[in-house]
Amino acid sequence: MTSTFSRIALWGQMTDASVARPARQIIEHLRSRAITILVAPEVCDLPEFADCQAITDKELSDQLDLLISIGGDGTMLGAARRVAGATVPILGVNLGRLGFLTDILPEQMTSAIDAVLSGDYLEENRLLLRSVIRSGKDGSKSSEHFAFNDVVLQKGVSGRMFDFNTVIGGTFVNKHSGDGIIVATPTGSTAYALSCGGPIVEPSVEALVMVPICPHSLSDRPLVVPSTSEIEISLADANEPPAHVTCDGEEIGQLAPKQTLMISVANETVTLLHPTNHSYYELLRSKLNWGKASRSGARERSS
Amino acid sequence: MTSTFSRIALWGQMTDASVARPARQIIEHLRSRAITILVAPEVCDLPEFADCQAITDKELSDQLDLLISIGGDGTMLGAARRVAGATVPILGVNLGRLGFLTDILPEQMTSAIDAVLSGDYLEENRLLLRSVIRSGKDGSKSSEHFAFNDVVLQKGVSGRMFDFNTVIGGTFVNKHSGDGIIVATPTGSTAYALSCGGPIVEPSVEALVMVPICPHSLSDRPLVVPSTSEIEISLADANEPPAHVTCDGEEIGQLAPKQTLMISVANETVTLLHPTNHSYYELLRSKLNWGKASRSGARERSS
Amino acid sequence: MTSTFSRIALWGQMTDASVARPARQIIEHLRSRAITILVAPEVCDLPEFADCQAITDKELSDQLDLLISIGGDGTMLGAARRVAGATVPILGVNLGRLGFLTDILPEQMTSAIDAVLSGDYLEENRLLLRSVIRSGKDGSKSSEHFAFNDVVLQKGVSGRMFDFNTVIGGTFVNKHSGDGIIVATPTGSTAYALSCGGPIVEPSVEALVMVPICPHSLSDRPLVVPSTSEIEISLADANEPPAHVTCDGEEIGQLAPKQTLMISVANETVTLLHPTNHSYYELLRSKLNWGKASRSGARERSS
Amino acid sequence: MTSTFSRIALWGQMTDASVARPARQIIEHLRSRAITILVAPEVCDLPEFADCQAITDKELSDQLDLLISIGGDGTMLGAARRVAGATVPILGVNLGRLGFLTDILPEQMTSAIDAVLSGDYLEENRLLLRSVIRSGKDGSKSSEHFAFNDVVLQKGVSGRMFDFNTVIGGTFVNKHSGDGIIVATPTGSTAYALSCGGPIVEPSVEALVMVPICPHSLSDRPLVVPSTSEIEISLADANEPPAHVTCDGEEIGQLAPKQTLMISVANETVTLLHPTNHSYYELLRSKLNWGKASRSGARERSS
Repeated sequence: MTSTFSRIALWGQMTDASVARPARQIIEHLRSRAITILVAPEVCDLPEFADCQAITDKELSDQLDLLISIGGDGTMLGAARRVAGATVPILGVNLGRLGFLTDILPEQMTSAIDAVLSGDYLEENRLLLRSVIRSGKDGSKSSEHFAFNDVVLQKGVSGRMFDFNTVIGGTFVNKHSGDGIIVATPTGSTAYALSCGGPIVEPSVEALVMVPICPHSLSDRPLVVPSTSEIEISLADANEPPAHVTCDGEEIGQLAPKQTLMISVANETVTLLHPTNHSYYELLRSKLNWGKASRSGARERSS
Repeated sequence: MTSTFSRIALWGQMTDASVARPARQIIEHLRSRAITILVAPEVCDLPEFADCQAITDKELSDQLDLLISIGGDGTMLGAARRVAGATVPILGVNLGRLGFLTDILPEQMTSAIDAVLSGDYLEENRLLLRSVIRSGKDGSKSSEHFAFNDVVLQKGVSGRMFDFNTVIGGTFVNKHSGDGIIVATPTGSTAYALSCGGPIVEPSVEALVMVPICPHSLSDRPLVVPSTSEIEISLADANEPPAHVTCDGEEIGQLAPKQTLMISVANETVTLLHPTNHSYYELLRSKLNWGKASRSGARERSS
Repeated sequence: MTSTFSRIALWGQMTDASVARPARQIIEHLRSRAITILVAPEVCDLPEFADCQAITDKELSDQLDLLISIGGDGTMLGAARRVAGATVPILGVNLGRLGFLTDILPEQMTSAIDAVLSGDYLEENRLLLRSVIRSGKDGSKSSEHFAFNDVVLQKGVSGRMFDFNTVIGGTFVNKHSGDGIIVATPTGSTAYALSCGGPIVEPSVEALVMVPICPHSLSDRPLVVPSTSEIEISLADANEPPAHVTCDGEEIGQLAPKQTLMISVANETVTLLHPTNHSYYELLRSKLNWGKASRSGARERSS
Repeated sequence: MTSTFSRIALWGQMTDASVARPARQIIEHLRSRAITILVAPEVCDLPEFADCQAITDKELSDQLDLLISIGGDGTMLGAARRVAGATVPILGVNLGRLGFLTDILPEQMTSAIDAVLSGDYLEENRLLLRSVIRSGKDGSKSSEHFAFNDVVLQKGVSGRMFDFNTVIGGTFVNKHSGDGIIVATPTGSTAYALSCGGPIVEPSVEALVMVPICPHSLSDRPLVVPSTSEIEISLADANEPPAHVTCDGEEIGQLAPKQTLMISVANETVTLLHPTNHSYYELLRSKLNWGKASRSGARERSS
């Protein structure tokens, strides 16, 4: 059996036995085929992965045909941002129950991989965000950071709400007061943004969601904007302490007065591979317990 | 075994076999004791309940020691409003899963009844609402209606939102625009009011919740007021078509311009009996799926 | 001065003097130019509009260069659905304060019209919805109806919540319980959908919002789907009484069990003309009172 | 004119001229009467307050007849917590627009004070919260802190959501995941809690509100509990980094695993004095812009 997937990387927390075990199963399963299995250099040092080849950063983005992420959605987030810029598709194996991103369960793992290797899969491109902190109007820029779920600006340790301005495409949008703001991709719409009152955005919608966090004003509502939007966020007050900026939950820097957090969709996308029976709406039903009317007695009428 | 409960009524949709069966089980279980079992007159006519005594309306409120409601929360709502004004306690047997009001499952039914008969139970008093429609300032009043969950004013068939004023204790509160308003007891706070964004109110809190339905203004938020509040609601516009008034989901009349919907807590309360291990918070956890983090992957951070 | 706009219709409630007055001002203003002013046939019968020409239904869609809507957003909604299918652009004059759709105030009216006539304007295409009720699986279809804001399915007079299923592109999405559902265009996202917890959607986003009305399940959240979505909604229970269907607030029919409400984006769009300084975000700030921190003292910290 | 108010303290940021000016006006206004004006010791050192007497901490709580807070609601929060435990009533002068707590505007200041001195006022008691951090099951306790608005537990710098358990009266309530939780008095229900989706609670309701901050689970809703509730909150995971605890926005400590944040209503209350025409609902209308239908065009129907 030949396949276009001849160099496959396994990604995950391999020091964790519950991750290493399915990883080994995959390796055994692929052993008889002409496939090179790559893992992170530090994983190569583990005795059980001694037969694997270490992947270089260059390979991670260029000479890889498939990355299999083993773990939860969090593992996948890291994988996705790591291969951003390459055209490597990702397949997500979830160890527990279905994830939003990782929709292959361990028991289906080998059959799903076989199906993919034989070309039987759905391919889906997902938006990535790109964020940069600029100092001053035409000032220097920080290195850029990618986010698959969201870029979040949040109040600092003081715990006090702060004022910040949003600008889209050079046009002033709003002066917000509150705990911060989330700029999420459709992928991220079911993550932190959902907890803050944002809508669920079907992944193929070409849009971003801006969701204020605990806004002071009750009319400061979630806003869905085109994915072409160039979003700029800055502190409104010169005396404000710096606010924290995170990408997919990892702090990438602080935003001080006179600096601007610039967020836009990256040129790069993430390519996810799914089993052919994949349905986003089915995932939603499963993850959000749709259709299980747990509060069933609550609104019953008297009889 | 003597008990203070010697006259017990069974309440439920007895033409439904799934209700009649547990009702018969209760009757058999109590047969050997000096207890009179009463059922609604029309139930007496059913062959399987021929050995029961028909209850009169007078008995329903006066000469009854216990009412056992068999069915769901909806059945209990009807029972509660029926015995309002009497001091008859109610025990709720749920046929399916736990209800907010009916917290005894069929399999625990006979042991729970035995416990109650031997005096081993928790007694809880719940607020009832009393609503009346008044015509004109000092005009005639409609007959009064009770509600255990909520009194709801809602737009009519036109489907158009309408304007209405709320007054508490003679003081103007707000002119609302929207689809209507819910005035709920703590019991009703987990019913329709919860679907409209209202808070959960622990049953012993001496308060009512006023929850606007799909309000036009984003600052028109749920309002918790003392249970002593005399609430008045009237249409704001003389040309408005009448709006619908329901008590626990049953329409009791329409509110026309110049009329006033008057809502206050009734002097009567509902007495619920519970097993001694009853916990309201446990019920909440069960009904609202608390602690089952179904969206577990959603906010995971990258790794 | 020549212009591509030589046949202009005025649209509004002309029997209302506050509408007729600015309409007359526009007529006087345009009198010296080679422009034909058209009005609805019944308006032609009013003495003050005797000098205007009656517009035929055919002209409304075909031989008209511009429609000026005078009134509020509601007037504009009617105008937009009337010219749907034609390529007639619409200019909206608001009599009171700024509307979401009608962004020209009376005092700027004549200068705005002059600017448009000289080609100085922004042109914007907005999505229209098209809805049809189908009987049975391959059954007969009702006539189609357009909606500029939203198509709404809502519970009937009984006031009871009901169960309904949603399907997108042939794929089952969810079984909902509640008071109904709104399918809104970006234009309609700031109307009824906003009152029900939906997000604000920038008009150029190619998406629709599905917003459940007072849903029973707390996880039944607003969903943003691609504008290419073919949405089907049907009652879940064969014994359900029919539910009401409205387009932009006007009832177009009822949905009975076994029928399907089919909603998709129409091939036709609405073309709005705006002054060149038009900003959607500025409109939002104005309409939603953004930046006016009315609750300013509320979250102050102690000092 | 004799009055029961013979020792009056002025409270505010007196180094700010906009606060010092009305303070001086009050001093001049009261000069001719047998009233002792007290100010904080450091204020006494300011030349313009040289004629005032310094207040000692003991006097602040014991030998004071009235405290006049000059500033905003934040200033009042500080004043209220400072005199907690004493029976000193507070009158609030707001420098800008009406506050929730400070309902006297500068222009009414002297007449309002005269009215109060002549016994013409409404007196209102408000709940205070008392919070303590306990180490271990029967471990040592931190010093207690008062809160007039709210006690807030919030995630630390990591920005990651965390799991925590709530217990009321010894009964387990819920295991929450999210950014934290607010326990608010009715007074605090219009502050941070409102931004997080909590209800407005009329100040005389004997209840507290527990409002989860950006909860992971969509069914983790605001909960209104009796004011007699003994609330305990602890981290769910032994490896969790400490979370931050604030009272009225001021950090009072951190909550580490195995520690318990204990919150209950204090024995002490705050006594507010109001003009006799004071109306809480009028304040709400003013602060929340009720009745000003700014989005008036939004839900208009087509015509």
